[in-house]
Amino acid sequence: MPLTHNDNLFQSSATRLIGKGLGAGAAGSEPLEADAAGWRILEGEVSLPVAVLRDSALQHNLAWMRRFMDAYGVELAPHGKTTMSPELFAMQLDAGAWGITLATAPQVRDAYRHGLRRVLVANQLVDRANMAIVSGLLADPDFEFCCLVDSAANAQALGAFFAAQGRRLRLLLEIGVAGGRTGVRDEAQVREVVDAIAQWPQSLALVGVETYEGVLKDEAGIRALLRRTLATLQALRVEGAFAEPRALLSGAGSAWYDVVAEEFAEVARDPGVRVLLRPGCYLTHDAGAYREADARIHASNPVARQLAEGLRPALQLWACVQSRPEPGRAIVGLGKRDAAFDAGLPLPVLRYREGDAAPQPAPAHWRLAAIMDQHAFLELADDDDLRVGDLLCFDICHPCLTFDKWRHLLRVDDAWRVTGVVRTYF
Amino acid sequence: MPLTHNDNLFQSSATRLIGKGLGAGAAGSEPLEADAAGWRILEGEVSLPVAVLRDSALQHNLAWMRRFMDAYGVELAPHGKTTMSPELFAMQLDAGAWGITLATAPQVRDAYRHGLRRVLVANQLVDRANMAIVSGLLADPDFEFCCLVDSAANAQALGAFFAAQGRRLRLLLEIGVAGGRTGVRDEAQVREVVDAIAQWPQSLALVGVETYEGVLKDEAGIRALLRRTLATLQALRVEGAFAEPRALLSGAGSAWYDVVAEEFAEVARDPGVRVLLRPGCYLTHDAGAYREADARIHASNPVARQLAEGLRPALQLWACVQSRPEPGRAIVGLGKRDAAFDAGLPLPVLRYREGDAAPQPAPAHWRLAAIMDQHAFLELADDDDLRVGDLLCFDICHPCLTFDKWRHLLRVDDAWRVTGVVRTYF
Repeated sequence: MPLTHNDNLFQSSATRLIGKGLGAGAAGSEPLEADAAGWRILEGEVSLPVAVLRDSALQHNLAWMRRFMDAYGVELAPHGKTTMSPELFAMQLDAGAWGITLATAPQVRDAYRHGLRRVLVANQLVDRANMAIVSGLLADPDFEFCCLVDSAANAQALGAFFAAQGRRLRLLLEIGVAGGRTGVRDEAQVREVVDAIAQWPQSLALVGVETYEGVLKDEAGIRALLRRTLATLQALRVEGAFAEPRALLSGAGSAWYDVVAEEFAEVARDPGVRVLLRPGCYLTHDAGAYREADARIHASNPVARQLAEGLRPALQLWACVQSRPEPGRAIVGLGKRDAAFDAGLPLPVLRYREGDAAPQPAPAHWRLAAIMDQHAFLELADDDDLRVGDLLCFDICHPCLTFDKWRHLLRVDDAWRVTGVVRTYF
Repeated sequence: MPLTHNDNLFQSSATRLIGKGLGAGAAGSEPLEADAAGWRILEGEVSLPVAVLRDSALQHNLAWMRRFMDAYGVELAPHGKTTMSPELFAMQLDAGAWGITLATAPQVRDAYRHGLRRVLVANQLVDRANMAIVSGLLADPDFEFCCLVDSAANAQALGAFFAAQGRRLRLLLEIGVAGGRTGVRDEAQVREVVDAIAQWPQSLALVGVETYEGVLKDEAGIRALLRRTLATLQALRVEGAFAEPRALLSGAGSAWYDVVAEEFAEVARDPGVRVLLRPGCYLTHDAGAYREADARIHASNPVARQLAEGLRPALQLWACVQSRPEPGRAIVGLGKRDAAFDAGLPLPVLRYREGDAAPQPAPAHWRLAAIMDQHAFLELADDDDLRVGDLLCFDICHPCLTFDKWRHLLRVDDAWRVTGVVRTYF
């Protein structure tokens, strides 16, 4: 289901791009989108810092995940909260994704406006204005939507609201664990929620079961949660609790999707079940927690091993050395306003000086020691040759909280020439 | 110097607002800006979470800081990187600010587009695209601009670039401390930079001296840095290093502006010196580091004591309880995508349930234990009465990293009715 292209209403080559990390237009003004293709990062044609997406890595990651999902017979509903970018959603759908997962009603509205018509919200819908947003979108019969529920109180509120609107909301029962985040903890809670939904047959439809295993850190606990989720699905099928012939079963964040695929592969062959996995960070990957997850997956999962190379970091930041006030210290124009810092600071991987033929690998001992709103502190050896004006390229840790610092990211080829602009809507 | 109103090109009541934390338009669509005034947060008319600015607190803080600066005879160039909001810049200028401080060239371009014509960039300008942005804006003779320099290498690069453009760039020499961030460390570095600037009389103009004391944590060290900065200014005046008859002297972040005012008050009476202080967070304040700073200032500064009440937190977040899966735990629809988390998690201050006459104070033992991208974990007592659908209001710690999560914030009166929309440009 590709995106329709009413997104063209909102972006055309005549659009003036506003913000940071863009090329300069005529006389320093905001550039036109039409001017973007061909900007050269290394030639000083783009304001630094800039967030870039490497086309080659994006294409590799899209193909990798498609092959992985196909091998298990499961479908991909990548979590779009990571990027909130209609252009990237379109790439994911073109690469075979069933639909896009989102976290909030405003995210759904933004994605719908750009043409998305199949959404799983992996979250509860609780306040009235957010219910109104979803209800409004359900006026479109081509819009396919479901969200989570984990309490009778929420089911009653949703039932009453959507009954008043004359709409029917499709729901997945969320299964959680003690000490975890959302989701029912036990059989009694399952019963309460299912019974509450059943009181609103005109306005609520239970269509499946969902879990998010990422709140757990140990594989045994994760497998137990997944099996409990699957058992709940099967029990509810037996009792006829689902409103549609094909029940949805969904799990998987970006760290444990391999284990979820393994656990759900068998039921995915049942024509009465559709399995949807929701990793979102695979598209850009990172050099932090998801690189570690990738290493674990390649060590333990046979399909991943067959695919040989794992995911590649596609999202990087270029920034400029702005001060060399002391030996052993460089101040870089890159800060908390530009990069995630909650799961590891950005990692310097390349250096470039005007006149160099190409960027060189950054020495392995270079590291960021601290980061402020607009500055990063790079530690290096006292006699390292790094000058004011030199460029540095950083890998990032945690793509979600890097994407939301940028309203545009630039797609680049392997020579760091811009191939296109990607928008975000946070 | 008020903002001119060419910002009307970019915002009118017919503008459709896009994003989160807004009211629902007709049938859940994006609302018109004209619809915003009167939205009631407590009546479920705004999508949660939402970031709000209390008008009464903004007005109090604007008046407070104006009286404080006037008492010391210094001028205010508030750091606009905090909010990046043209509407808030206009309020600050209307309340007497000399101009606005910014951190980057794209910030300057955005603020210029909204009418700002007097900017101090408290940062070095290092890469070519950013130089081009500033050079383009300097074509406007009404645009008053200066930025920092702390190395001969940067001075040479700027001199060559602006000479080629036929423009002249005004510079402040930045004074720093060993182990700190940017800024010259000693007399030898001062000499090098001043001599390098002097090589480009057509394209560079040294117009003052600047420091940022916020990299230090102890008052004695801060006073020593401020005195060294002042001594450097006076020595450069004596040798005739400044290109303009009135030299600029600038310091002060949001935590130590009182000490800077005390140290610079005397020279502020010299008609040959203009003192510019740059606190930015005073406008919205917070319930974290700046509340602590406020307490210190009130304990030690005589002017602040005379002003009686200190600054008030103006920026708050409303969010909704989305799950009560276990006793003692509530999951709130508020996350790292919505609030700063680097200097303390948001603090629950009010609770509201549909039908209540007004919000009530949140119990003092309620606190956030953790925060994820889209969720917060609230700890409470096992028998506390908090339900799915209840609303919570949070104070925040660190306004800068909260503002940059929102493209719009809603101004509200004391009954949480919306009075207007404030845009941000990050």
